[in-house]
Amino acid sequence: MGIMEENIMKIFAYGIREDEQPALKEWEGNNPEVDVEFTDQLLTPETAALAKGADAVNVYQQLDYTRETLSALHELGINKMSLRNVGIDNIDLPAAREFDFSISNVPVYSPNAIAEHSMIQLSRLLRRAKALDKKIANHDLRWAPTIGREMRMQTVGIIGTGHIGRVAIKILQGFGAKVIAYDKFQNDDIKAQGLYVDTLDELYAQADAISLYVPGVAENHHMIDADAISKMKDGVVLVNVARGNLMDIDAVIDGLNSGKISDFAMDVYEDEVGLFNEDWSGKEFPDPKIADLIDRENVLVTPHTAFYTTKAVYEMVTQSMDASLAFIKGETPAIAVEY
Amino acid sequence: MGIMEENIMKIFAYGIREDEQPALKEWEGNNPEVDVEFTDQLLTPETAALAKGADAVNVYQQLDYTRETLSALHELGINKMSLRNVGIDNIDLPAAREFDFSISNVPVYSPNAIAEHSMIQLSRLLRRAKALDKKIANHDLRWAPTIGREMRMQTVGIIGTGHIGRVAIKILQGFGAKVIAYDKFQNDDIKAQGLYVDTLDELYAQADAISLYVPGVAENHHMIDADAISKMKDGVVLVNVARGNLMDIDAVIDGLNSGKISDFAMDVYEDEVGLFNEDWSGKEFPDPKIADLIDRENVLVTPHTAFYTTKAVYEMVTQSMDASLAFIKGETPAIAVEY
Repeated sequence: MGIMEENIMKIFAYGIREDEQPALKEWEGNNPEVDVEFTDQLLTPETAALAKGADAVNVYQQLDYTRETLSALHELGINKMSLRNVGIDNIDLPAAREFDFSISNVPVYSPNAIAEHSMIQLSRLLRRAKALDKKIANHDLRWAPTIGREMRMQTVGIIGTGHIGRVAIKILQGFGAKVIAYDKFQNDDIKAQGLYVDTLDELYAQADAISLYVPGVAENHHMIDADAISKMKDGVVLVNVARGNLMDIDAVIDGLNSGKISDFAMDVYEDEVGLFNEDWSGKEFPDPKIADLIDRENVLVTPHTAFYTTKAVYEMVTQSMDASLAFIKGETPAIAVEY
Repeated sequence: MGIMEENIMKIFAYGIREDEQPALKEWEGNNPEVDVEFTDQLLTPETAALAKGADAVNVYQQLDYTRETLSALHELGINKMSLRNVGIDNIDLPAAREFDFSISNVPVYSPNAIAEHSMIQLSRLLRRAKALDKKIANHDLRWAPTIGREMRMQTVGIIGTGHIGRVAIKILQGFGAKVIAYDKFQNDDIKAQGLYVDTLDELYAQADAISLYVPGVAENHHMIDADAISKMKDGVVLVNVARGNLMDIDAVIDGLNSGKISDFAMDVYEDEVGLFNEDWSGKEFPDPKIADLIDRENVLVTPHTAFYTTKAVYEMVTQSMDASLAFIKGETPAIAVEY
């Protein structure tokens, strides 16, 4: 083979949605030495054959990456797999190890996507936008009594001051809101600004609204339960765009029913897998609790869409493709997964 | 009469809505020397008699303050009238002059109420929230293809940098958006930040989204017309919470139809009087253009509700009541109207 042929690298991408194509094509244009092919199908033992001749695959799916799937790639001589998303818990890692797979993921694609969504939802709740939207759609154009509250008048408690929580704080400060924050692991900048309270109880006692930005690790499981809610202000507003298991949803529903919680926005739910990102229109909705919350005027449910922006998708595609290319060149990208 | 009786001052307030009562009662508690009485009825020649014995009246209505109405107050010895809102164009000023009325209004109650609403609506448009809301209400919980855009990725053109425009700029900066601004009367702080472009044409050429904060004076009439829109970026997002007559609504609708304008939020409308703040549900809607805009997925219509927050209402009530009291004491409040 000549030098030219050896230099042509090929990446095959699975599960490419329409909204990912612009970023993928831009990446291809910027990397003319790489032949990019793609399909909207997901990677399975059967579709693995589509990648024949590729040096690496690029993937994003909730479907498991099973031993069979990885074996099928291995048979094609492919052992480089870059995920466009963060989660690697659905990969058969022993099999990946056996077949010597190089794997990467995209742990940080757009903190702003999620932080913006959380603060947009908070502001919509404060403005009673859902009630007002319904009135307007019905041609009732009277504004009273659907009065709103202003972001700047709120004391907002931010739990978790990592990438996303800190962006939320900047947004709140732009609005002129008072921010208080809690984190076991304090950030220097937030500390220098004097925003931290010492305990969650202090935050619960002072905050008019509370938004969560902590991981769903075991010690945070159901941190927002009946006990925590009882320590909050009457009429507190809650926002959760972080992880579903941070909240005991039954306790939150009790709080909404009693009026203790005035408004609630959720983008995540403990039992969301198999429920969110599915089309239940015209079918029996399998979760009556969520159906009820969707119908409430003081609740905003979004099905894990906070992350879903053009910028986030651009980052997921380009970072993962960069990683695929690095693997092919024998380099180790910064986002390679050690497993 | 004894000193005690002479010291008891009385203010009668008309058209008090339920959402105004908390602020009114708080003001009364803070001013025990004043007897405050109120009604939910508006001030008319007939209801003027309710104010008998009062030293001043406090009002807020779109109904005209006619010669008959002012004359009826005059007959009762009342010549002090404080408006809880800004507009005084519905007062018969020659009659007010004849009866020697002292008048005040509330020109600035909450720039944040309006600025926040404009930026909340912009962010909702960018996130395609109306389309997503509809999907979720119908139990279609798939996120694709309803992808959002981020505030921080936008270049936002702010036309008008008075109180409200400057608050909008702060909010945008909190989101991390790029701000460019235009105003004939430049603000020192905005100038120092280097945000001004020299011409509207430059702003039109550069802005991904444009939001208006200028008065509806004659020279601004229909500033957003077909010519202006043709100078904007393809897919521009427009927001108008300022004055309805700033826009040629037919040109905006043409822009929406062609796709030149991707999204539009309006809180004001040139022909809003008699249309907004009325209940048309179950009746024939009198304005087909607005009915059509209300139904569009990429348009958010709110019926002049941007101002309508608890903070704004609090300011309208307390500032106007303070002015009523000042008039009674023979003082001239800062918000007295010279006419």
